[in-house]
Amino acid sequence: MRKLQMVFSFCIAASAVMAQSTDSAMFKRIADDVFTNSTGYENLRILCKKVGPRLSGSPQAAAAVQETYKMMKAMGADTVYLQECMVPHWVRGAKESALLVDAKGKTFSLNICALGNSVGTGKQGIKAEVIEVRSFKELEQLGVAGVKGKIVFYNFPMNPTNVETFRSYGEAGQFRGRGPSMAAKYGAVGAMVRSLASNIDDYPHTGTTTYNDSFPKIPAIAVSTRHAEYISAELKKNKTMQLYFRTECEMLPDVKSHNVIAEIRGTELPNEVITVGGHLDSWDLAEGAHDDGAGCIQSMEIIRVYKKLGIKPKRTIRVVMFMNEENGLRGGRKYAEVAATEKDKKFIFALESDAGGFTPRAFGFTAEAPVLTKLRNWAPLFKPYGVYEFADGGGGADIGPLRPLGTTLSGLRPDSQRYFDHHHAANDTFEMVSKRELELGAINMVLLLYVVDQYGL
Amino acid sequence: MRKLQMVFSFCIAASAVMAQSTDSAMFKRIADDVFTNSTGYENLRILCKKVGPRLSGSPQAAAAVQETYKMMKAMGADTVYLQECMVPHWVRGAKESALLVDAKGKTFSLNICALGNSVGTGKQGIKAEVIEVRSFKELEQLGVAGVKGKIVFYNFPMNPTNVETFRSYGEAGQFRGRGPSMAAKYGAVGAMVRSLASNIDDYPHTGTTTYNDSFPKIPAIAVSTRHAEYISAELKKNKTMQLYFRTECEMLPDVKSHNVIAEIRGTELPNEVITVGGHLDSWDLAEGAHDDGAGCIQSMEIIRVYKKLGIKPKRTIRVVMFMNEENGLRGGRKYAEVAATEKDKKFIFALESDAGGFTPRAFGFTAEAPVLTKLRNWAPLFKPYGVYEFADGGGGADIGPLRPLGTTLSGLRPDSQRYFDHHHAANDTFEMVSKRELELGAINMVLLLYVVDQYGL
Ligand SMILES: [Zn+2]
Ligand SMILES: [Zn+2]
Repeated sequence: MRKLQMVFSFCIAASAVMAQSTDSAMFKRIADDVFTNSTGYENLRILCKKVGPRLSGSPQAAAAVQETYKMMKAMGADTVYLQECMVPHWVRGAKESALLVDAKGKTFSLNICALGNSVGTGKQGIKAEVIEVRSFKELEQLGVAGVKGKIVFYNFPMNPTNVETFRSYGEAGQFRGRGPSMAAKYGAVGAMVRSLASNIDDYPHTGTTTYNDSFPKIPAIAVSTRHAEYISAELKKNKTMQLYFRTECEMLPDVKSHNVIAEIRGTELPNEVITVGGHLDSWDLAEGAHDDGAGCIQSMEIIRVYKKLGIKPKRTIRVVMFMNEENGLRGGRKYAEVAATEKDKKFIFALESDAGGFTPRAFGFTAEAPVLTKLRNWAPLFKPYGVYEFADGGGGADIGPLRPLGTTLSGLRPDSQRYFDHHHAANDTFEMVSKRELELGAINMVLLLYVVDQYGL
Repeated sequence: MRKLQMVFSFCIAASAVMAQSTDSAMFKRIADDVFTNSTGYENLRILCKKVGPRLSGSPQAAAAVQETYKMMKAMGADTVYLQECMVPHWVRGAKESALLVDAKGKTFSLNICALGNSVGTGKQGIKAEVIEVRSFKELEQLGVAGVKGKIVFYNFPMNPTNVETFRSYGEAGQFRGRGPSMAAKYGAVGAMVRSLASNIDDYPHTGTTTYNDSFPKIPAIAVSTRHAEYISAELKKNKTMQLYFRTECEMLPDVKSHNVIAEIRGTELPNEVITVGGHLDSWDLAEGAHDDGAGCIQSMEIIRVYKKLGIKPKRTIRVVMFMNEENGLRGGRKYAEVAATEKDKKFIFALESDAGGFTPRAFGFTAEAPVLTKLRNWAPLFKPYGVYEFADGGGGADIGPLRPLGTTLSGLRPDSQRYFDHHHAANDTFEMVSKRELELGAINMVLLLYVVDQYGL
């Protein structure tokens, strides 16, 4: 048995080597064409500058549907169509404001924004004593006696020592997500979180909070890291500072929106579907250039380059612009829900790019062990294009719901050092994206889709 | 013999594994401290914003000497001293201008700058027919008949298909370097080169040209890539466009300047010297943030972190701010010249960072094969910090002159996708440097110096 296995492994390895020299020539053709002829960077400009911020339910989100539909049509996709889904419709309302007020009534204006999906204070705002905590344990120890009637300030900085910034985001992110309801549990009237940003700067970073229905929904904001540091220093001098803030955001009834889906039909195994995508919606504060205009643009590159080079996929390639990743994931859920009903099809593989348009370093995979082994045979071919690792684990929020269908998931992992300077903040703009970095990411995505299509899983 | 070799290799490997787990803990301590406590980013701000552009011979170059002397003193280096060297003193003079003039006298203003070390036109400027070429062969074919009295326009774009942008820079760079004298050989009165930039934009990129003394020195400029495309398109419509340009640059007599050298003395082998550095001078058009403020700042990090963590090197660490890399290399040459006279010392290793403050990907080495093998044993330790490759070949312009002393050379290789958006142009500014990317590069440099110091070569 062991011997048979070895022979078997040898055969796989040998056929892989033979295939690889042809593939490496095709890889070069694809890469050269993207670096020379890609329209991605100019399309990203359209998404950022012509369309702009495109929060689910906004007119800009609808415009983004139209624009990307046109882009993929123009690239020559076999079909492009809209997939309807209902999305939350949260609106920020009038620009927020906040003041730190000392005992003498002296005020200091803070850079803040409402957290996504949060309730507003109404025009009159709220004013209360502010109490700083760095953990849920501290909050618990304060209890109702220490928290009731106050505004809880979660001041947990992203840990700078993780090379992978997403890890620090995960650690710090719980306060934005669960913090407001946890504060409400002890009677707080409002919550403020330190922005999830790598550096000390002046941008408040938004993002969703998730209310726990067992507790009152209290208004929740994010404050810039620089002002978080400032407030903390002031509170050390004077424990009874007050905070005033006003947010006029509100959650309106769900509205109709769409995923945009383009296909290149497979020539040999059209019922095996390979999905690739990014999310079309963005936060309302910025242009959503890195998050996730870049991923959308990179995902559609395969259409342009396949049509240009005359590559006909064996399997069906579906490029999806997912709606509503940011504050609902309705698009990703809808896509998987419909996929589950397409009984004649097998959703073998899905790739997402939603970690910024930065220089690529790796792919992550959620796959059974033999599939991961097979994928890793191809890894050396990617090294000349800057992807050095096929890592265990990964995917993306929008493609996650496909996993129960047995789909192998993958996520592009760009370098993450700059991501949280821009994420969900006003400086996530077109100018912050490097054309070559964007293209190099797109190249690696097309290359991965190419081998998966050619050889299956 | 073969068996002995195997045993020997095994022993090396085994001792390496033992050492590596201690080293990996030390690596983490160093990395954590840099990410948490580095003053590098703020020091880079001083170099870029307080000092500013610092071309050799300028008051700002002298100020940069003083500022970096102070920085390394403050970090607690055992000694900091200046090493005198004479440097070229080229000055740009009044802001340049250029006009493309059609047959009807209609003019179009061009974004240009004089090439470094070039002669000026004088206040009156020069005006002549412009002739476009894409190779030296084309120039040769035109010959005196086609070139005499004209301005030669070298319009050779950087090849976008090389993933490593430095390769394209090397290919296109010959026109900036040798182009003006080659044009003069055939009687041209001026030369204009397409800027060495990855993308189409509005910045002219300067850099040295090198005159061949056999031919007249003619004025030479660089034009922005967007305007290079424009001129080329216009010339297709009308072959006899004229170009006017005025540059008032000139080469003044050499002046005195300095390398800045800081040392941490070795505790066991003080006569074995490990050199690390970047170049302190920059072009006059920008802040020299990526080129090479970043390299200077990264090089001095070892002083701060060693003093902070109480690490005492076995060998002597010398941190060098090299003067005049850009238009003379006098600092690098002087350092090697003096090193050659220090007969009691062995200059075992030199590391340079001069490829921008971007996220690190690799180190390159110029080393004998067994040394490279030894170095590569340590490579896996660097993977958690984003350096995936110890490549054959590399170093840096300033440390190159040490090679005849038997010094192993190394260069940090950051990701190169964005470098030529900024290189030698007005947008090489502090704002374009990411704090975390800068720090991650510095971390890897300290780690490399650490293992070389601990284990020798
Ligand atoms: Zn996203
Ligand atoms: Zn340089």
